[in-house]
Amino acid sequence: MIAESHSRAVVLRAFNVPLAIESAPVPEPGPGAVVAQVGLAGVCGTDVHLHHGQLPIPLPIILGHEGVGRVQRLGDGVATDFTGHSLREGDAIAWSSNIPCGHCHWCVVAGERTLCETRKVYGVNQRFDELPRLSGSWADAIYLQPGSAIFRLPDDVTPEQAIALGCAGPTAVHGVIDVTGITAGDTVVVQGSGPVGIASAMYAHLAGAARVILVGGPASRLDLAREIGVGDAHIDIFAFPDPAERVRLVLDATPGRRGADVVLECAGAPEAVAEGWEMARRGGSFLALGQYTDRGPTPLNPHLITRKQLRILGSWGFAEKHYLGHIQALPRLAARFDLSRLITRYPLEDANRALADMAAGRVMKPVLDVSRES
Amino acid sequence: MIAESHSRAVVLRAFNVPLAIESAPVPEPGPGAVVAQVGLAGVCGTDVHLHHGQLPIPLPIILGHEGVGRVQRLGDGVATDFTGHSLREGDAIAWSSNIPCGHCHWCVVAGERTLCETRKVYGVNQRFDELPRLSGSWADAIYLQPGSAIFRLPDDVTPEQAIALGCAGPTAVHGVIDVTGITAGDTVVVQGSGPVGIASAMYAHLAGAARVILVGGPASRLDLAREIGVGDAHIDIFAFPDPAERVRLVLDATPGRRGADVVLECAGAPEAVAEGWEMARRGGSFLALGQYTDRGPTPLNPHLITRKQLRILGSWGFAEKHYLGHIQALPRLAARFDLSRLITRYPLEDANRALADMAAGRVMKPVLDVSRES
Amino acid sequence: MIAESHSRAVVLRAFNVPLAIESAPVPEPGPGAVVAQVGLAGVCGTDVHLHHGQLPIPLPIILGHEGVGRVQRLGDGVATDFTGHSLREGDAIAWSSNIPCGHCHWCVVAGERTLCETRKVYGVNQRFDELPRLSGSWADAIYLQPGSAIFRLPDDVTPEQAIALGCAGPTAVHGVIDVTGITAGDTVVVQGSGPVGIASAMYAHLAGAARVILVGGPASRLDLAREIGVGDAHIDIFAFPDPAERVRLVLDATPGRRGADVVLECAGAPEAVAEGWEMARRGGSFLALGQYTDRGPTPLNPHLITRKQLRILGSWGFAEKHYLGHIQALPRLAARFDLSRLITRYPLEDANRALADMAAGRVMKPVLDVSRES
Amino acid sequence: MIAESHSRAVVLRAFNVPLAIESAPVPEPGPGAVVAQVGLAGVCGTDVHLHHGQLPIPLPIILGHEGVGRVQRLGDGVATDFTGHSLREGDAIAWSSNIPCGHCHWCVVAGERTLCETRKVYGVNQRFDELPRLSGSWADAIYLQPGSAIFRLPDDVTPEQAIALGCAGPTAVHGVIDVTGITAGDTVVVQGSGPVGIASAMYAHLAGAARVILVGGPASRLDLAREIGVGDAHIDIFAFPDPAERVRLVLDATPGRRGADVVLECAGAPEAVAEGWEMARRGGSFLALGQYTDRGPTPLNPHLITRKQLRILGSWGFAEKHYLGHIQALPRLAARFDLSRLITRYPLEDANRALADMAAGRVMKPVLDVSRES
Repeated sequence: MIAESHSRAVVLRAFNVPLAIESAPVPEPGPGAVVAQVGLAGVCGTDVHLHHGQLPIPLPIILGHEGVGRVQRLGDGVATDFTGHSLREGDAIAWSSNIPCGHCHWCVVAGERTLCETRKVYGVNQRFDELPRLSGSWADAIYLQPGSAIFRLPDDVTPEQAIALGCAGPTAVHGVIDVTGITAGDTVVVQGSGPVGIASAMYAHLAGAARVILVGGPASRLDLAREIGVGDAHIDIFAFPDPAERVRLVLDATPGRRGADVVLECAGAPEAVAEGWEMARRGGSFLALGQYTDRGPTPLNPHLITRKQLRILGSWGFAEKHYLGHIQALPRLAARFDLSRLITRYPLEDANRALADMAAGRVMKPVLDVSRES
Repeated sequence: MIAESHSRAVVLRAFNVPLAIESAPVPEPGPGAVVAQVGLAGVCGTDVHLHHGQLPIPLPIILGHEGVGRVQRLGDGVATDFTGHSLREGDAIAWSSNIPCGHCHWCVVAGERTLCETRKVYGVNQRFDELPRLSGSWADAIYLQPGSAIFRLPDDVTPEQAIALGCAGPTAVHGVIDVTGITAGDTVVVQGSGPVGIASAMYAHLAGAARVILVGGPASRLDLAREIGVGDAHIDIFAFPDPAERVRLVLDATPGRRGADVVLECAGAPEAVAEGWEMARRGGSFLALGQYTDRGPTPLNPHLITRKQLRILGSWGFAEKHYLGHIQALPRLAARFDLSRLITRYPLEDANRALADMAAGRVMKPVLDVSRES
Repeated sequence: MIAESHSRAVVLRAFNVPLAIESAPVPEPGPGAVVAQVGLAGVCGTDVHLHHGQLPIPLPIILGHEGVGRVQRLGDGVATDFTGHSLREGDAIAWSSNIPCGHCHWCVVAGERTLCETRKVYGVNQRFDELPRLSGSWADAIYLQPGSAIFRLPDDVTPEQAIALGCAGPTAVHGVIDVTGITAGDTVVVQGSGPVGIASAMYAHLAGAARVILVGGPASRLDLAREIGVGDAHIDIFAFPDPAERVRLVLDATPGRRGADVVLECAGAPEAVAEGWEMARRGGSFLALGQYTDRGPTPLNPHLITRKQLRILGSWGFAEKHYLGHIQALPRLAARFDLSRLITRYPLEDANRALADMAAGRVMKPVLDVSRES
Repeated sequence: MIAESHSRAVVLRAFNVPLAIESAPVPEPGPGAVVAQVGLAGVCGTDVHLHHGQLPIPLPIILGHEGVGRVQRLGDGVATDFTGHSLREGDAIAWSSNIPCGHCHWCVVAGERTLCETRKVYGVNQRFDELPRLSGSWADAIYLQPGSAIFRLPDDVTPEQAIALGCAGPTAVHGVIDVTGITAGDTVVVQGSGPVGIASAMYAHLAGAARVILVGGPASRLDLAREIGVGDAHIDIFAFPDPAERVRLVLDATPGRRGADVVLECAGAPEAVAEGWEMARRGGSFLALGQYTDRGPTPLNPHLITRKQLRILGSWGFAEKHYLGHIQALPRLAARFDLSRLITRYPLEDANRALADMAAGRVMKPVLDVSRES
């Protein structure tokens, strides 16, 4: 239970110093809005970058762009969730972290709401010192503004399962399913074994890949992946530090040594791209899903694009429809993989420790268990 | 074991009279050819049509366009299967029933080898009274001509599993995976619960459909589907004989009652098409996979195509690449569904009974167990 | 010049009786809105249907969903047109007739704003007895509500050229370019030689079709098409009343008598669909663009879909991005075709005569010259 | 007229030394083959690379993979050209330079005949010291082997027009039309103003681009392009040597300064790729068409792929269907652009001079006028 009228909140006021818990009043939801009680809030690699000041954001903000919880109060006019299901107080819900403007070139003409330049993002660009203040999930309550895509959790999905992939879930739906389009029978390489890599590999499995080769590390992450059935083959980049050797291993594992039909880059390191291009077969596809931060140029051989007739794709974040896709896929994912094994719980007060563990890669997916300690 | 130099063969010499077993010498394979010992030979609905003279074919022919068996003798120059795997005498194999010409407009320009007008089809258009005579799988041996796509069975796939879907497997790869392209999370309706419907539903599952609704009958077929995990919901057309009622049930089972993302028509009855168009959502896809025989026009409302922005697709048979896709998917299918439950075995001498049971829909998939009785 | 504070307007108050000119005050534009002075207003086949009560609309309305004119007054916050060009009073503009809601499943998830069920349409579903009243183009002034997609005319495009295709222009962009996707080198059949057929044929030319075969009538329309360079071959349905004969003529005109790569149905008659399926080659595409009104089922042979592997598509209306596409293409179209030849001018008082001429097919494109007589 | 039984031929026996004219007997065509009298033979940038030993080829060979001419003698069984048109002695023809094997993974499964690893290429990998010897177009006669795609020239296309784009024509069909797919209304940047750039820009115009921006040099090439109507805007890389400045100019020329919808790289220089990625809009496409030779890695920023959601494509050479597409488009191209302005004629004896002029970029398209001097 949260306090009747106040919510704790983990606030980022200055970069690179410990976060502190503050308090703010929980407002009544206006028309079209919803106030939710947060149950579990995810900690994401992006939160580490935000904390380090590596992205251009306003301060102060409440962190947290991933969350599941329960409806505490519905604003006027809110009777259903984003899919049309009825929505009532107490319902278990998740919500998309971002609200595109709906009016710009990208929203209306291009139909690429992920490219909207003025979209609101909870836990990233909504100021704590402006109403409604409670705009991040690292808090007892969050104020979901009108236009938020809210989803009642499917009956057979637990909050743990819903938070386990965090924003990596809808990000993978966008990149792996919508942009790249795995075809049943494909041989797929996934570069990277963090949350985005794991989510992408799961979606490759879900989409019927004949073989998923997971290239990542450290061993503990690959072991966890193996244990929950993610990946048919696993290549540890610490055991095989030579990229050429890894390319050779991948080719050995593909039909006719032709290379993979699809390579999903979820590593983030720029040098993974050159390696991935080598792993793809002629006519194959490569998705740059992990190059979120700008680390500058890396040597790449464009002759390969022409000679191999590569199809190289990029995908940035996600929009409502990708979150919807993830919600729709969750029952299948949950039935197939023990999603809850991915998460490690922390009380809200230990947000700094959760962030440090994420930064160090000590855990796969830290989750703030907001409801537990209150 | 087959006789050293002769093979029994079920020959179609005249329409609508019982088939008789004849004998023919087993030739040595010429360069590029392979002689295979047949293990299991599938009986397909098309065989019923062929027997009834409903398709324009030469006579006499050995029936049987579906088969698995073992390599008996390799012709000069044959060292590998279609995928490049080494091939040796005794290896368990399957083969594609058709050999496109490779030179015509459809093969070279359109890249649609299924549309090749001069392709050879085992069990359909290869005369028994012309060399190499043994060109159908309802026989102890089959002569696989140069250009045949031969596949060594994956290690973890049994001959029963490989024959269970028969030509419906690669047909579904072509129509469901390549032409239609199920996306993970889709709601899919399958019209028809015969082998093509079952195979299509399996591929819809494999490709990550969030929900597969199987509309078919009789109840025994739906029960079998249910038991092996095919379909999330099942609508019995005998229990619900009113198409409008079935459409209503489908809409009820789709998000927002908008209809299915994809409707796969595998029923063959022309009137299924109008029903399927009603079941598809606006912007949805409809695949005509079952309209193999020309039964003439049926009333269809073209306003729906415009108003609903439908995408209506057709797919005819399969070519080598679809058979390859099916072979690559078989380990996944076999791990997920008890494929062997689909088949009913008959000795070669009971080919007429098998054909009659297929025509009557008494069994899902009759298979001639060629090796058993010899 | 329009009267300072009042606008004439052609109002539909009852079906099937002559329209009368009424008057309404021209309001000041609110924030985000624009008041435009209408120059030319198109008369469309849909207006005939509306007048006959064949579509479910509210009454009374001002007719007119096609228009070009000049900015009379900009509301607060309007500084640019839909493309970002600066917008000033007196600028020559066109505007999209419809405003999708931007929030529903179709707008947000499906990205198909044409399917939005609550979109506002000028001249169709905006009541004359509710503010801002002036919501149709058959008037001196129109009140363009916030969210309208307004386009400053390209410098090298005259108002006559901009109105000449009317809503058929963006409708063709949607159906022919976006949905069907003509490829340079395609052989294209266009069924129908009304405005939608002419616009679709123009876009087929623009997209690089190697050959455009126009099937329509009466002869006067085909002659006009021929004179302005639309179509490489023309088949008059009155001279060749037998559909089988027309199919034969089309096959004769296609490479290898295989049929057309793409058939664009812009005829509206349900029976055109069966004919069009026959005209398409195996593996070809058919677009149902003209089936706007529901005339019920027609006999169609679904075997053709399977056997020929047809790709049958539907397209409904247009949204902002298609109107944008049309505006961007206009300079090319205008340079290539004498667009102004398509139109016949009428004063606003002669709206009833323009409507009658449209209904009778006596002219290609009636246009109300609003500014002329005032 | 060629000598009755012998043909002159320009033979490459050793790299980097002048080519000499030799003689070889003209054989009778075997079944399926055609002997053609060469009229005009193109000189291509690849010939320069071949002459310099920069590609792995056998020696000796007759150079020349581009040619038009006349049928001299038809082998048994050849009655039609590749499209099914009747073919007779004396007919003006062109032919595709390469013959894919038709049996490998790339030909049969991938449907990418350009990736066939054993395809025969006239003028590149067919030895002069093996029968039929006459396998290059820099000769009086060429022996077109069975399987060659031969095209009778369209009636309204002259040999000059047919040779003017050389292999750049079908290469552009493959890359620009098939792989990238220009949509009518697109803003297109073409990097490079050599034959591939010119051909690609022409196809962008043909496919309905709203605006084609040609970035290249030297000024003489841009002037020629401008004179024949290729490109709507021209950026001279010598006048604007700073890539950032060129990017700025391109952005200035695109709607909303968002960048180009499509960037076609036809420059060959690896550093053009980084520049092209900057020129593409978010969600835009980039085609690497010019990276034929492997010049090693260049610095590229993969963050752009993710952030801008780029779609980066590669295209290698062409196959029969692309040559067919070019032949079908030629009448349109010839009607729109003065193709013959591109070529500069040389007698066969001056092949060395033609090659040197090509290497130096002194002419746009050298063509050996084989028939002139004999």
